Amino acid sequence: MSRFLSPKLADLTPYTPGEQPQNRQYIKLNTNESPYPPAPGVAAALAAADAADLRLYSDPEAAKPRAAIAAYYGLKPENVFLGNGSDEVLAFAFQAFGRGRQMAFPDVTYAFYSVFAALFGIPTRVVPLTADFAIDPADYYRPGEQVVLANPNAITGLELPLTAIEGILQRHPDDMVIIDEAYVDFGGQSAAALLAEYPNLLVVQTLSKSRQLAGARVGLALGSPEVIADLNTVKFSFNPYNVNRLSLELAAAAVKDKAYFNACCAKIIADREFTAAGLKKLGFRVLPGKANFLLARHDKVSGEAYYKQLKERGILVRWFDEPRIRDFVRITIGSHAEMQALLDATAQILAE
Amino acid sequence: MSRFLSPKLADLTPYTPGEQPQNRQYIKLNTNESPYPPAPGVAAALAAADAADLRLYSDPEAAKPRAAIAAYYGLKPENVFLGNGSDEVLAFAFQAFGRGRQMAFPDVTYAFYSVFAALFGIPTRVVPLTADFAIDPADYYRPGEQVVLANPNAITGLELPLTAIEGILQRHPDDMVIIDEAYVDFGGQSAAALLAEYPNLLVVQTLSKSRQLAGARVGLALGSPEVIADLNTVKFSFNPYNVNRLSLELAAAAVKDKAYFNACCAKIIADREFTAAGLKKLGFRVLPGKANFLLARHDKVSGEAYYKQLKERGILVRWFDEPRIRDFVRITIGSHAEMQALLDATAQILAE
Repeated sequence: MSRFLSPKLADLTPYTPGEQPQNRQYIKLNTNESPYPPAPGVAAALAAADAADLRLYSDPEAAKPRAAIAAYYGLKPENVFLGNGSDEVLAFAFQAFGRGRQMAFPDVTYAFYSVFAALFGIPTRVVPLTADFAIDPADYYRPGEQVVLANPNAITGLELPLTAIEGILQRHPDDMVIIDEAYVDFGGQSAAALLAEYPNLLVVQTLSKSRQLAGARVGLALGSPEVIADLNTVKFSFNPYNVNRLSLELAAAAVKDKAYFNACCAKIIADREFTAAGLKKLGFRVLPGKANFLLARHDKVSGEAYYKQLKERGILVRWFDEPRIRDFVRITIGSHAEMQALLDATAQILAE
Repeated sequence: MSRFLSPKLADLTPYTPGEQPQNRQYIKLNTNESPYPPAPGVAAALAAADAADLRLYSDPEAAKPRAAIAAYYGLKPENVFLGNGSDEVLAFAFQAFGRGRQMAFPDVTYAFYSVFAALFGIPTRVVPLTADFAIDPADYYRPGEQVVLANPNAITGLELPLTAIEGILQRHPDDMVIIDEAYVDFGGQSAAALLAEYPNLLVVQTLSKSRQLAGARVGLALGSPEVIADLNTVKFSFNPYNVNRLSLELAAAAVKDKAYFNACCAKIIADREFTAAGLKKLGFRVLPGKANFLLARHDKVSGEAYYKQLKERGILVRWFDEPRIRDFVRITIGSHAEMQALLDATAQILAE
């Protein structure tokens, strides 16, 4: 920290992303990336890209991927916002709808919500999950505050049914309810289906996980044209050309290939269930998650020790040194062979 | 605007980027893009990119381009910050050093400074340029406020000598002085040379113009390790993976090719002087700019009319409907043939 940093930011604790080792090769099950490459159309779009065009700015309207996303959801392009990853989309949403207000979210969820709130000086109400790590919708029935929920919830993977989200939306006619669906494509139900009825709903998604484009940085939001216009007010006051030329093309190509998307998601779901069954057989408690990861704990080995011993064996998972989840590790679902390797290494660790 | 937008943002007027026509082909001299393709190494890096790798997040440390930029300036990687375009870098700097303080900048400059200040609720002191559109350094001698200057100045292209910047730095031992050098490579002198002596200096640059990567979205900042750490505090509280995988590679390749960079800058400078001479011959007042654009006006044709008549002839320039510069147009320096076409069209317009 320099002595020039604004005192308003002096106590800010940034988000800690998962390890991104640049040297040693690991079986990387720590940042919820996909084990599969992007759709064939993405590779084709990359091959067709002309470096000479990079001299020109990207389309600030992001028309091409927005049209593709709108078509996928049966919406109009005015219902779609595109960001430099869903972290940027969420940051814009916090600024647009949270500044000068209160935002409510769970104690165990995507850690970035509290970081955004601290960065933008937004008061928060942090609501404990139930003893079973579930979200109780009734905890979010306070009109006058904005609500942010990850669904399925980050870290736990647990899903809230759409009826529960609808109940929250109905209690907040004058507040924004932001549903972060980073993990929705692995068996969850998208609240996009509720957009026509609820103008107070903003759905945030990412192409990082289910569309294998973490490295291209593309996130999106779905909402009413007025709410999307609000996000554009922030974007055009921050970084009008927020998504680069190549990612605009790659995103459009990724969204257009439904068959490949469905096939990859189906494989992740099958291997999640395979992994959950294998871990339970080894004595783990595994939360019944619907994301591309599992949260699991074992009575015989601490979360920290399990994480470290897997790392020694060349397998990276994520351990959060946080209250309530310190005993767990979060395991991203990789390929079938990678999950078999995880189960084998785990059996060895438990046998020692 | 939706009824959910925070009242704190209700009066926000976003930045208006230059037109980015997606259909008709223009001679595009309106957004200070380069007429030349990126360095050959950029095309090679793009060709070598493997779409399969896009499933993985980008390096949040941006180690590769930061090393290349540090080597170029004889600095260390800890002195270098990388952003998703220099707009993002500036937005982070405004948040880190401006929140809860006052920032001073000229009335005629990059329009985004006042937009950032409005977005983040930062009080400003807007200082008129002199009658000759110059920055008077003595106007920025008030300790206790932060200073942001574009050098060469955006819109005017006029340069402030390093001695003047040093004078400002000396009056602000406890304040940040941000020098935005988006256009420095076309004949200006970088304040990077002052970094060793002034820990209160932050230099912001972009690869959009002189390195032909507007579409890849890469900006950078140079400063003391402590000041760069402050920018990282904001970045890791906003979007840790702010630069995508492909742009990290392309940026490193672009910075490494000094010979190509120098050759392109030399051509732009020569064509700027060619264009300025031609416009003067036609009766224009042309500010003696050192950027990749010229600000010019003619007594016989309004800025708006000149802009519109050029557009009808297939040439896009930028006209700002703003006090003091409404009579001017800003003309980006394209290729020699494009500048000849501009001069020919201008002669026709004046002859009508």
